Amino acid sequence: MACPVHGIPRTAMWSGRATAAHRRRLPLAVRSASTRPQAEPEETTGAAAAQFDLKSYMADKTLRVDAALDRAVPLCHPARLYDSMRYSLLAPGKRVRPVIALASCELVGGPEGAAMPVACASEMMHVMSLIHDDLPCIDNDDLRRGRPSNHRAFGEGTALLAGDALVSLAFEHVATRTTGVPAELVLSAVSELASAMGPKGLVAGQIMDIESEGQAVGLDVLEFIHLHKTGRLLEAAAACGAIVGGGSDAEVDRVRRYARCVGLLFQVVDDILDVTKTSEELGKTAGKDVASGKTTYPKLIGLEKAQQLARTLVRNAEAELHGFDCVRALPLRRLAHYVADRHN
Amino acid sequence: MACPVHGIPRTAMWSGRATAAHRRRLPLAVRSASTRPQAEPEETTGAAAAQFDLKSYMADKTLRVDAALDRAVPLCHPARLYDSMRYSLLAPGKRVRPVIALASCELVGGPEGAAMPVACASEMMHVMSLIHDDLPCIDNDDLRRGRPSNHRAFGEGTALLAGDALVSLAFEHVATRTTGVPAELVLSAVSELASAMGPKGLVAGQIMDIESEGQAVGLDVLEFIHLHKTGRLLEAAAACGAIVGGGSDAEVDRVRRYARCVGLLFQVVDDILDVTKTSEELGKTAGKDVASGKTTYPKLIGLEKAQQLARTLVRNAEAELHGFDCVRALPLRRLAHYVADRHN
Repeated sequence: MACPVHGIPRTAMWSGRATAAHRRRLPLAVRSASTRPQAEPEETTGAAAAQFDLKSYMADKTLRVDAALDRAVPLCHPARLYDSMRYSLLAPGKRVRPVIALASCELVGGPEGAAMPVACASEMMHVMSLIHDDLPCIDNDDLRRGRPSNHRAFGEGTALLAGDALVSLAFEHVATRTTGVPAELVLSAVSELASAMGPKGLVAGQIMDIESEGQAVGLDVLEFIHLHKTGRLLEAAAACGAIVGGGSDAEVDRVRRYARCVGLLFQVVDDILDVTKTSEELGKTAGKDVASGKTTYPKLIGLEKAQQLARTLVRNAEAELHGFDCVRALPLRRLAHYVADRHN
Repeated sequence: MACPVHGIPRTAMWSGRATAAHRRRLPLAVRSASTRPQAEPEETTGAAAAQFDLKSYMADKTLRVDAALDRAVPLCHPARLYDSMRYSLLAPGKRVRPVIALASCELVGGPEGAAMPVACASEMMHVMSLIHDDLPCIDNDDLRRGRPSNHRAFGEGTALLAGDALVSLAFEHVATRTTGVPAELVLSAVSELASAMGPKGLVAGQIMDIESEGQAVGLDVLEFIHLHKTGRLLEAAAACGAIVGGGSDAEVDRVRRYARCVGLLFQVVDDILDVTKTSEELGKTAGKDVASGKTTYPKLIGLEKAQQLARTLVRNAEAELHGFDCVRALPLRRLAHYVADRHN
């Protein structure tokens, strides 16, 4: 039986028996790192690498993203709706998607400002997916980012509508606030983001997640869920950053594949954290996946192999940055390690 | 106290005491028809008017819109998600928004094909709003278009996600399927649709609708709800049709104002039908507004004055078509009457 996503025999996935033709269509995360170009050793970036501090870089970008998000969603009428949108959107967060968008833009030589609207849009969309995911009819989660989830704070109806408003605002924001970029490229970014959020993107992952709850699913279904639920929006953020930054098609494809690895990595690490951390450390309910019988990487392949997979994904992500300017690639390279090593 | 929408004193609205400066900012529906250019008598369109049959026109457009929607959302994986989207999207409907988009495009001399993607997108967005509106946390409606509402047929989680998928697909559809139109104009259409669906558009109307439930609200709040919940997407459909059809800014503004009147008209008629028709005739639960204590036009100003308001809105809508080619304006002119005279 063929995998519905990649059209390759399910048996070939994760088994090392994929043909060369299939390998080209396999998600990067499951290819052997040895078949792909090796990342340039970080040493070659010399002094810049030694001086680069991801923490400062992230803090700086996050500050600017937070300020841009604050401006993008000011307190307006109807106040309850805007309160609800701002409650979730401006809650302290890692801002991984916006930072990837900004870093991808700079990677291809574009100015940060060109990518700020797509960066903000990717966060609005991510937050929308969290608000809807937390609703009683999906995950019924009471905690998010260490605070009551949106529907616990504002009620289900308002939470549903705040999510709806955020996703439309995200598209409006990109279409109206991206300046100094040709309309064709802005339109291409709109299309990227829309595809990432739609029925072949994030939503496909969410519905497969719901359908597989309480069922024994294989690695192929688990990968489908994560590549769509988490990966697609990260991919789109990276691709959009590179697009509005003026990157070539090949460059856009490479940052897209980088983000695909990081997206899967993000989820593998999430699964690992769910079984190794407390609710207090995570800022959300820990052990929930185990309690709900949800399939996770640690459950399916064991904690050790899940941790090994995370390391492979970091290497694969780094390999995609080979060929770009070493100094410009530093943020994305270190970001992959940051996602792997995070504690919440 | 100033109206939060139009920034004019509430006391001036609907009272006939608006100043000239305010009048320019009043929604067309509440201005006296006598202060505005009169619509060209339909007789002047001569033979074309006599021959024009709205029923055939609507049937022809609806057929093509339905076929385009069917192609836009084919049965894909995950099947349950696509089934749910198609269930609501392809249910027999009046397709008023798509028809207005196509007719607006043709009104300014554009080809139907240019507007088909925005037409389809407006219907996807409308259907998304219906699916989410029917959910238990908002209206908790069991019937829609004569069949079980989406969440009754597929479950709440799937219905929520089908709505989310439809709205993103709508943006992707416009961005990728609009051909032969400059990117700047397509981007402008994306912005129109996004603004219509976002926190200053349809969602603002929905949240005010929820907040005012069970409360005594005035005409200004009722108008805010309808102009946003129903009006904004109709406006956007009309504006997008005219934009991709190559209309001037002035032409786009005029079809926008036309649709604004038709949007309010649509809701006034809906309120009237709720108290004058049966569930069977409507294809949805009748008398629900009265039962839930919802404020409606008949409740606030009486059935007779509500019917009179509907007639005024038709006249105002028609007046906006003055100056366009008479024959090309026939569909929109007759459409306003159709919305006023509909029975479900």
